[in-house]
Amino acid sequence: MREESTPPTIDMDGWVCPMPLRDAPNIVMGHGGGGAMSGELIEHLFLPAFGAAADAGMGDSAVLTLGGARLAFSTDSFVVKPMVFPGGSIGDLAVNGTVNDLAMSGARPMVLSTAFILEEGTALAEIARVAEAIGTAALAAGVTLVTGDTKVVDSGHGDGVYVNTAGIGLVPDGVDIGPRRARVGDAVLVSGEIGLHGVAVLSCREGLEFGTTVLSDTAPLHGLVAAMLATGADVHTLRDPTRGGVAAALNEIAGTSGVGVSLDERTLPVPDGVRDACGLLGLDPLYVANEGKLVAFVAAGDAERVLAAMRDHPLGAKSEIIGTCVAEHPGMVVAKTALGGTRVVDLPAGEQLPRIC
Amino acid sequence: MREESTPPTIDMDGWVCPMPLRDAPNIVMGHGGGGAMSGELIEHLFLPAFGAAADAGMGDSAVLTLGGARLAFSTDSFVVKPMVFPGGSIGDLAVNGTVNDLAMSGARPMVLSTAFILEEGTALAEIARVAEAIGTAALAAGVTLVTGDTKVVDSGHGDGVYVNTAGIGLVPDGVDIGPRRARVGDAVLVSGEIGLHGVAVLSCREGLEFGTTVLSDTAPLHGLVAAMLATGADVHTLRDPTRGGVAAALNEIAGTSGVGVSLDERTLPVPDGVRDACGLLGLDPLYVANEGKLVAFVAAGDAERVLAAMRDHPLGAKSEIIGTCVAEHPGMVVAKTALGGTRVVDLPAGEQLPRIC
Repeated sequence: MREESTPPTIDMDGWVCPMPLRDAPNIVMGHGGGGAMSGELIEHLFLPAFGAAADAGMGDSAVLTLGGARLAFSTDSFVVKPMVFPGGSIGDLAVNGTVNDLAMSGARPMVLSTAFILEEGTALAEIARVAEAIGTAALAAGVTLVTGDTKVVDSGHGDGVYVNTAGIGLVPDGVDIGPRRARVGDAVLVSGEIGLHGVAVLSCREGLEFGTTVLSDTAPLHGLVAAMLATGADVHTLRDPTRGGVAAALNEIAGTSGVGVSLDERTLPVPDGVRDACGLLGLDPLYVANEGKLVAFVAAGDAERVLAAMRDHPLGAKSEIIGTCVAEHPGMVVAKTALGGTRVVDLPAGEQLPRIC
Repeated sequence: MREESTPPTIDMDGWVCPMPLRDAPNIVMGHGGGGAMSGELIEHLFLPAFGAAADAGMGDSAVLTLGGARLAFSTDSFVVKPMVFPGGSIGDLAVNGTVNDLAMSGARPMVLSTAFILEEGTALAEIARVAEAIGTAALAAGVTLVTGDTKVVDSGHGDGVYVNTAGIGLVPDGVDIGPRRARVGDAVLVSGEIGLHGVAVLSCREGLEFGTTVLSDTAPLHGLVAAMLATGADVHTLRDPTRGGVAAALNEIAGTSGVGVSLDERTLPVPDGVRDACGLLGLDPLYVANEGKLVAFVAAGDAERVLAAMRDHPLGAKSEIIGTCVAEHPGMVVAKTALGGTRVVDLPAGEQLPRIC
C-alpha cells in the first residue's frame, strides 16, 4: 500500500523531489526494472512533473472512449540485449509486448505503430531481421502496422536497435478488467510455466549454458484472453508478468486492489530448465520475466471453468490455480513454501536481470 | 516519382535488399534525416520486411475507423541534441511533434502515450525538467497523457533521455486531408517564417553564435488547422515541414500526388536570423527544420480565404502563398529565384543537421 501522507522532500539541483527515490540523484538500472523503483519513478517524478496533463490512472494500458468507441491504448519500448535470444528476438517482443498489454484490458488488439532508434553503423541486414520478426509476429497476432518513425543516433550511443510500439485495441462492451478489481475470495491463476523468457535471455549473455536450452515464451495472449472471457466468467484482473516476474505482477495488483494474495508454492509451474538455472544463479523463479504468460484474478465460483478454458487453449495448456485473495495482509503477497512454512514475496526493488525486454 | 520497375538487388549477409540504399551495408546518420535516404529505408527495407502485416500507406499518421470512430494515429521518437535549446526542449517537441502529425490529418488530438529510454547515470532533475515540459506542452495542446513506459539502458548507451510519444486524434466527419490529394492548380501556402527550429538547435551546438538569438518555433498546430477548416475550404494536403524542411515536405507531396510544385522564392518568409545563420554556414533555409509550421495545398479558389483565416490565428500571422501546383515536371519542386532564374529544389538525401528532433 502506498503512503497517503505528505512525504518529506529532497531538493536536487533546483528540482524538489518528494521522497522516496532512494536518495539517489541519478537514474540507475533498477529504475527500469518494473519493480518498486520503477513505481517510485512514476509516482514521485513523472506524475508530479506531468501535473494536470496526466490521467491519474496512468498505467500499462489505458481504456478510454473516443468518438463512441471503447479503446485500449498502450506503449512499450524494447531495449533487450542481445537482440536475438533462444525462442525469439526484440521484434517478437515489440509486437507481443504491446499486444499483451492491450489484451490485459480484455481488448482485441487492432493496430500498432513502430518507432525505431537506430545506431549509426548498425548493419542493414540486422535491422531487416528485426523488421521481419515484427512483420511475422504482427501477422500471427492479427494486428496491422499502420504508422511508424525512424531516428538515427551517433555510433556509440544507442545500441543497435531500440524499438517502440504503441497499439490500439477494441474493448468489447461489458468487459471491465483492471488492477483495482481483485476481491477477497478471488482465485489466482497463472497460464503456464514461469520464468522461461528471463532464463532464455540470460542464457545467451555471458556465454552461460545450463545443459538444456530454455526458450523464451514470447507469444500474443489476446486469443487466450478471448477464450477465458467466452466462458462468461467474471474475470476481475489480468496482468502479463514481464519485468519483475509473477512476484511484481501480484504485488502491484494486491497493492492497487487492497487485498492480500496467498500463494501455494507447490502449485507453481516451474519447468526444470528454469529451476536448474535459478538454482545455479541464486535467482527466484517468481521474479524472473515472462513474455507469454498471464496471471488472472477471477471470482472463486468461476475459477474451475476459467481454468478448463485456459487449459483447452494452446497457450494455456499448463495453467494452474496458484493462490487466493485473502483479507489478511492487504497489499502483501505471502507464499506457503514446499516445506510447509510461509514467506513474504516482496515487490522487487529493481530487476535481477537488466534489459530483459 | 518512385520507380515501379523491378530494381536490381544486393545480397547483404543473407538478406536480399532491393536497391537503392546507396550500396551502404550499414545505417548512416542520413537514414534518420527525413529525406531520400529515410524514404529508401522505409520503401526498400521496412515495408518488404514487414510484409503483409504493414498497411500499404504506412506514413507519418494513419487514419482508420475503429469501433465506428474515425481516428488518426501517429508516433515519433525524439533524440534531439542538446535536450534543451533556445525556445524549447525535447519535452516540447515530444508533445508538439505528435500533436502536429495528427493535426496534419485534420484530427483533433486527444491522448498521448509517453515512453522514455533513460541512460543510467542521468540526473533525475534533468528527467524531471523534460517531464515538466511534456506536462506543460500537453496541457497547452489540450491532450491527456494516458499511458507510458520507462526503460533504462547502460551508461554510455542511450544519450540522457530519448522520448517516444504516440497519439490518437479524432478526425471530423467529412474531413479528407492527405498527401495524395494535391491537384494541379492548387495554391501552396506556408504558415509563417521558416527555418527557426533548425537554426535554434544548431546555435547551441558547438557554441555557435549568430549575433541575434533565434528561438525554435515548436508549437501545436491543431488550432490553426481547425481555423483553416472552419472556413469551409477544400484543404487537400497538410504537412509539417520538420526534418528536411519545406523542401522535403513539398517533394514528398509532389511525388505522392504526381504534381509539380512551382515556388516563388521571393514570397518565402525567411527571418533575418535564419538568413544570416544560413549564409554563414552555407545552408539553404528551405531545407532547415521547422517544428511549428505547416504547408498547405488548397483549391485555388479557396486560397485567399484560407490565407486570411491563417493570418488571423496567432500561429499563422505571417502566412504566405508561396507557390502553385503545375502539370509540368510532375514529382518535382522548382523555384523561381529572386534574380528571375529557376532552380530545382531536390529532395535532400539526408539531413543537413543530424538529431534535430
